[in-house]
Amino acid sequence: MKNNILKIAESAKQAALKLTSIPTNTKNKALLAIASAIKKNSKHILNENKKDLDAARKSNLNEVLIKRLMLDEYKINEIVEEVKSVAKLEDPVGKVLSQVELDKGLMLYQITCPIGVIGAIFESRPDAVPQISSLCLKSGNAVILKGGSEAKNSNKILVDTISKAAESNEIPKGAVQLIETREEVAEMLKLDSYINLVIPRGSNSLVRYVQEHTKIPVLGHSEGICHVYVDKNANLKKAIDICFDAKCQYPAVCNAMETILVHKDIAEKFLPLMIEKFKKAKVEIRGDEKTRKIIQGIKKATEKDWDTEYNDLILSIKIVSDLNEAIEHINKYGSKHTDAIVTENKKNAEAFMDLVDSASVMWNASTRFADGFRYGKGAEVGISTAKIPSRGPVGLEGLVIYKYKLVGKGHVVRDYVGKNAKKFKHKVIKKLF
Amino acid sequence: MKNNILKIAESAKQAALKLTSIPTNTKNKALLAIASAIKKNSKHILNENKKDLDAARKSNLNEVLIKRLMLDEYKINEIVEEVKSVAKLEDPVGKVLSQVELDKGLMLYQITCPIGVIGAIFESRPDAVPQISSLCLKSGNAVILKGGSEAKNSNKILVDTISKAAESNEIPKGAVQLIETREEVAEMLKLDSYINLVIPRGSNSLVRYVQEHTKIPVLGHSEGICHVYVDKNANLKKAIDICFDAKCQYPAVCNAMETILVHKDIAEKFLPLMIEKFKKAKVEIRGDEKTRKIIQGIKKATEKDWDTEYNDLILSIKIVSDLNEAIEHINKYGSKHTDAIVTENKKNAEAFMDLVDSASVMWNASTRFADGFRYGKGAEVGISTAKIPSRGPVGLEGLVIYKYKLVGKGHVVRDYVGKNAKKFKHKVIKKLF
Repeated sequence: MKNNILKIAESAKQAALKLTSIPTNTKNKALLAIASAIKKNSKHILNENKKDLDAARKSNLNEVLIKRLMLDEYKINEIVEEVKSVAKLEDPVGKVLSQVELDKGLMLYQITCPIGVIGAIFESRPDAVPQISSLCLKSGNAVILKGGSEAKNSNKILVDTISKAAESNEIPKGAVQLIETREEVAEMLKLDSYINLVIPRGSNSLVRYVQEHTKIPVLGHSEGICHVYVDKNANLKKAIDICFDAKCQYPAVCNAMETILVHKDIAEKFLPLMIEKFKKAKVEIRGDEKTRKIIQGIKKATEKDWDTEYNDLILSIKIVSDLNEAIEHINKYGSKHTDAIVTENKKNAEAFMDLVDSASVMWNASTRFADGFRYGKGAEVGISTAKIPSRGPVGLEGLVIYKYKLVGKGHVVRDYVGKNAKKFKHKVIKKLF
Repeated sequence: MKNNILKIAESAKQAALKLTSIPTNTKNKALLAIASAIKKNSKHILNENKKDLDAARKSNLNEVLIKRLMLDEYKINEIVEEVKSVAKLEDPVGKVLSQVELDKGLMLYQITCPIGVIGAIFESRPDAVPQISSLCLKSGNAVILKGGSEAKNSNKILVDTISKAAESNEIPKGAVQLIETREEVAEMLKLDSYINLVIPRGSNSLVRYVQEHTKIPVLGHSEGICHVYVDKNANLKKAIDICFDAKCQYPAVCNAMETILVHKDIAEKFLPLMIEKFKKAKVEIRGDEKTRKIIQGIKKATEKDWDTEYNDLILSIKIVSDLNEAIEHINKYGSKHTDAIVTENKKNAEAFMDLVDSASVMWNASTRFADGFRYGKGAEVGISTAKIPSRGPVGLEGLVIYKYKLVGKGHVVRDYVGKNAKKFKHKVIKKLF
């Protein structure tokens, strides 16, 4: 098995070294061929998926997981469209980031290039296979996929379909490969001289396992403990809408809110209004002492609540005496993922967005917006809480990283999902690459 | 001691959280105050440095190291000018990398920000203290410094001078701190929830020790095994100049060349000419079988030579049958640091620069140019061989990294150093941040 993984990794590395210079047109042609092959092969894919579904039902897998596992004609069409849409995205390889004439005749170019071999580990959804494969192919990276064992037949037929279509279209053999067992993952995580990046997508425990068992850089985050701070100068309607959306629109995800911090001067007005809406949605509320004086009959929030990701309809509330206490709480207990302030005071908003040390900071918008698709990236490979710099000679600019600042007027994600979903504009005002 | 390091790290973290929003003017004022304080305190600094020098002589430290350790009036002035020059560099914090209107009233900004707390570990030179401190301060990062124990008195007085001047100029306490023993370094490397980045500068063994003993991201590289490939279509004069510069201009550094790869069709012309010049410079030559047929009396290069960084006047030579063999050799044995091709054939040069998987790739220029100052970055904090991506939601652009491509016409570093050094232009044609 060890030898098998080594062979897979070697073949991926060889493919990656070639992929780096494959022209955009060739990659796009291969992506369209992959889309067609999936479409053409759909009956076969659905048959294999049925095997997984039968096995899942036999082993009494719960209905939510079975739903995530299930493919049908409609889902296949969605997958086909997604792969096609990656062909339409701009090629991120070969962009000139900087261009400096060092001296007469001596030109320095800083050019984007692929990372190399990516190990992608994800849980039961088989549609992750075409999504991750197509993003890796478009960015010139080879990928080794490991899906959930419940989806093994579906994953296998999808990877077969994809790699065959790719190889018939000038993509090197080994560019998209599958491994199937946990033991193989453990072996893969040791191969830091073959694999350049690991992307685990799934539960906190999966991500933490990966982080603790490899020297390879990991793209991702384990926890998502996100906060909304309701400032003294908050507009109450916006505050309620944003807090509700951040908690209830989809509680099981990393960018959902776990804790509300409320300024003491607005707590008595805000909390009773808010609680009403949350109780209707059956949210369990836990509060600190001060909160429990305003809202009777709720559970006490302890120190442990401040650093728990509930991933569920549970919410903790803390009353703070000022903006600084809110910022300090977030920097102490948060997971550096996404945090929001609701306020009409620009100065406070700017201080919050500057001083909260998280990858995304929001002003008058729901934390649920922190998402690759919503940010206009077309698709998402993961959300990173890392702050890691640069390649080659590193100067002053290598000692900084970036954060995202999202500024809204009370925007909530609820309006952008479902039947009458508003469409995003994604109008690029200025983009550096 | 454990508690002491924890206190230092906590205080650095608190300082870092504040530093993130300190305005450029304040940082520059503090840098100028630091420069003045060093100047004003120079006698005291030289006295402390004398203590280190006396101790070093007593313990028979070798002359090269004593020279690196020594400060004098002239060196102090250089340090003062360097700190002032950092004040003149553009502030890398707060730059807008992208700006997207997601929807009406919902704006997303991607903004540069500091990394946090940096642990900088370096060897005997005390002038590294003001250099690293000023770069960290300007980029809004707190820094914990650990210098060589031979320089402990010099480092202490320098850090005292710097931190006092900084604190009297609105820089938070804890922004620049010193630790002194190896045991403290070992403790610091465990504090991954306080320290965001470690920069080891020094021997390969120091870097490797750090990489193997911490979960904190490390900026740096252990080895520098750099190659020059002399193509069939090389201009012989350029090839000889570049190879000589890459090996002999300063053999003890990471961007010096260790192996020459020569195309078989040019080897018989190139090698005898080259060898003459190298022998005069007392370079020990080792060659593969084919090379030894052309140049008699040289040592045999073994497999081990291909992945050895000599850091000395030793050179290995291999004859390859084509460009691809050269690229494969470099990707197999190289350290992904810096590699060059000498050729008049544009297509070959482009293939080489695309396919060699190194942070810097050069065309008709010496590998010795891979350096922060020469690349126009003002100063260098290190050279990174990492390929690590992004923060926040990551889309296609997070699956690429960059490489530097340097294109010359036979440029060598020799012309840019010493008494009649040519000056760099560093004319920015296009820079994205």
